[in-house]
Amino acid sequence: MDQAWLGIDLGGTNTRLGLVDESGLLARERFATQAPLGPGPWLENLQAAAAELLAQGPRPAAVGVASPGIIERPQGIILNSPNLPAWRDFPLAREVGRALGLPALVENDANCYALGEHRFGAGAGRDLACFTLGTGVGGGLIIGGRVVVGPLGTGGELGHTLAVSGGRLCGCGARGCVEAYASATGLKGLIREAHEQGRPTALERGAGVNRLTQAAESGDELALELLAQAGRALGRAFANVAAFTGLDLIIIGGGVSAAWPLMAPAAHEEMCDRLRLVDPQRMEIRRSQLGDDAPLMGAAAMVRDNPL
Amino acid sequence: MDQAWLGIDLGGTNTRLGLVDESGLLARERFATQAPLGPGPWLENLQAAAAELLAQGPRPAAVGVASPGIIERPQGIILNSPNLPAWRDFPLAREVGRALGLPALVENDANCYALGEHRFGAGAGRDLACFTLGTGVGGGLIIGGRVVVGPLGTGGELGHTLAVSGGRLCGCGARGCVEAYASATGLKGLIREAHEQGRPTALERGAGVNRLTQAAESGDELALELLAQAGRALGRAFANVAAFTGLDLIIIGGGVSAAWPLMAPAAHEEMCDRLRLVDPQRMEIRRSQLGDDAPLMGAAAMVRDNPL
Repeated sequence: MDQAWLGIDLGGTNTRLGLVDESGLLARERFATQAPLGPGPWLENLQAAAAELLAQGPRPAAVGVASPGIIERPQGIILNSPNLPAWRDFPLAREVGRALGLPALVENDANCYALGEHRFGAGAGRDLACFTLGTGVGGGLIIGGRVVVGPLGTGGELGHTLAVSGGRLCGCGARGCVEAYASATGLKGLIREAHEQGRPTALERGAGVNRLTQAAESGDELALELLAQAGRALGRAFANVAAFTGLDLIIIGGGVSAAWPLMAPAAHEEMCDRLRLVDPQRMEIRRSQLGDDAPLMGAAAMVRDNPL
Repeated sequence: MDQAWLGIDLGGTNTRLGLVDESGLLARERFATQAPLGPGPWLENLQAAAAELLAQGPRPAAVGVASPGIIERPQGIILNSPNLPAWRDFPLAREVGRALGLPALVENDANCYALGEHRFGAGAGRDLACFTLGTGVGGGLIIGGRVVVGPLGTGGELGHTLAVSGGRLCGCGARGCVEAYASATGLKGLIREAHEQGRPTALERGAGVNRLTQAAESGDELALELLAQAGRALGRAFANVAAFTGLDLIIIGGGVSAAWPLMAPAAHEEMCDRLRLVDPQRMEIRRSQLGDDAPLMGAAAMVRDNPL
């Protein structure tokens, strides 16, 4: 019997849908989220996109939704997501389920990313920790083949673990989080601060991560330093992953991970410096295989594992 | 049917044994480990103590051993334990099993502590993170009712997570671990360093944690500062527990936890400062209920869960 599941990745800019079976992605669709319009128009666009998708394969058994923010489980309500303010307190699982006529579950997008890589991507079935370097730094932990969320619902929030005690202010309100150094937002802020301090650099004041990477590749010292600093923050987090969970596989994804080769040496050095309990060579660091497909594939895998 | 399990806590000074059933501890024994003599004489003493214990209750189905150090699983070999150098590479599970004629499993003592509190103590069946403040800082994570060890075997090593970036050198060789601030060894080192810096204090140069606590209670500024600093290191670790695992229950045990009331305010303040993703009031911090019985009770619970 052909079994399939629908995965949806609700992003701040685009929404992606995929029809997934045991072997992987069968077909995909996408549409603009138009976040400021809120969930009403989005649900209509979702119905249209899902109809096109479902014409291409077997009827899915359930739908999984990858959403930014902190999720209230099991109801699947978005409690708090800076990029989707109009979605706040929206009962996403119930409404998606009703719109598509399918049982639905919602999970944090970085957790879905981790599950997608675990099941279909670079994880190849191994337990893992995943860091998604984007606007923020998301994270997900897969232990025993399942996403770790915990009673607080904050499990796998690796971007908000401590990298620098008393360090930069993070978007979350705490100081010294990994996200304050290794996210696009953090790096942009660091470029701005360097300008304010009059640091010599080829980088423009409002430069983003693509320019930062270019400048680093051209030997700009500030750019190289910022990417090394991001690497060190990640290396500390990798050592903490080992001491918290004992996991030996880390997956790096997200847009900012394009600059990973410029961060990796510092990340590795810092991880080795902090991880003394076992041979740090046992920790494997891999790039994402699925990229933008990871969250929707993980969301589909989640509903396969949790028949509704 | 009366089912029972034997738990053993192999400590640097004393070895404790307990006969445990579903309701808790039925009887206990103890003898001096005499660590420098190595495992040979210890096994003989163990057989004698176990014989006395087993005369007092039902025949146990299996034996669980709580051991310091990093354990190779599932063979139950002690890979590395500073307090038991003569035990290094000793096939503990096999030899205990042979000596007692019972199937045997070995697990890290702090992990057993956490499992004991989860099953029989302050955890009352809830998933939790446990910090044991002793010579070092041990730790254990219980997720889904099971100990987290991970493929590296280092899961739950909460004492070696990052508290202060670039901070004090820890016994493990890394800088800034929680253990460097909140263990007996760390606190003794900090007292010594304060003396070297000529800090005014009522504390003697070689003072330990009991004197430190007394001095703090008498208003000694250095003593109060060191205990607050230990609390801050723990508070950072508590926030990291939330961001890594989403757990909402932390158990504090071990000898140094007698000073917990003097550390708690700083720990709580720091945790609230770092934990912004959810209301930090949802994180519950409890003292150990089982104390010295926790590791052996957890070791017994482990073999109950893993019928051999």
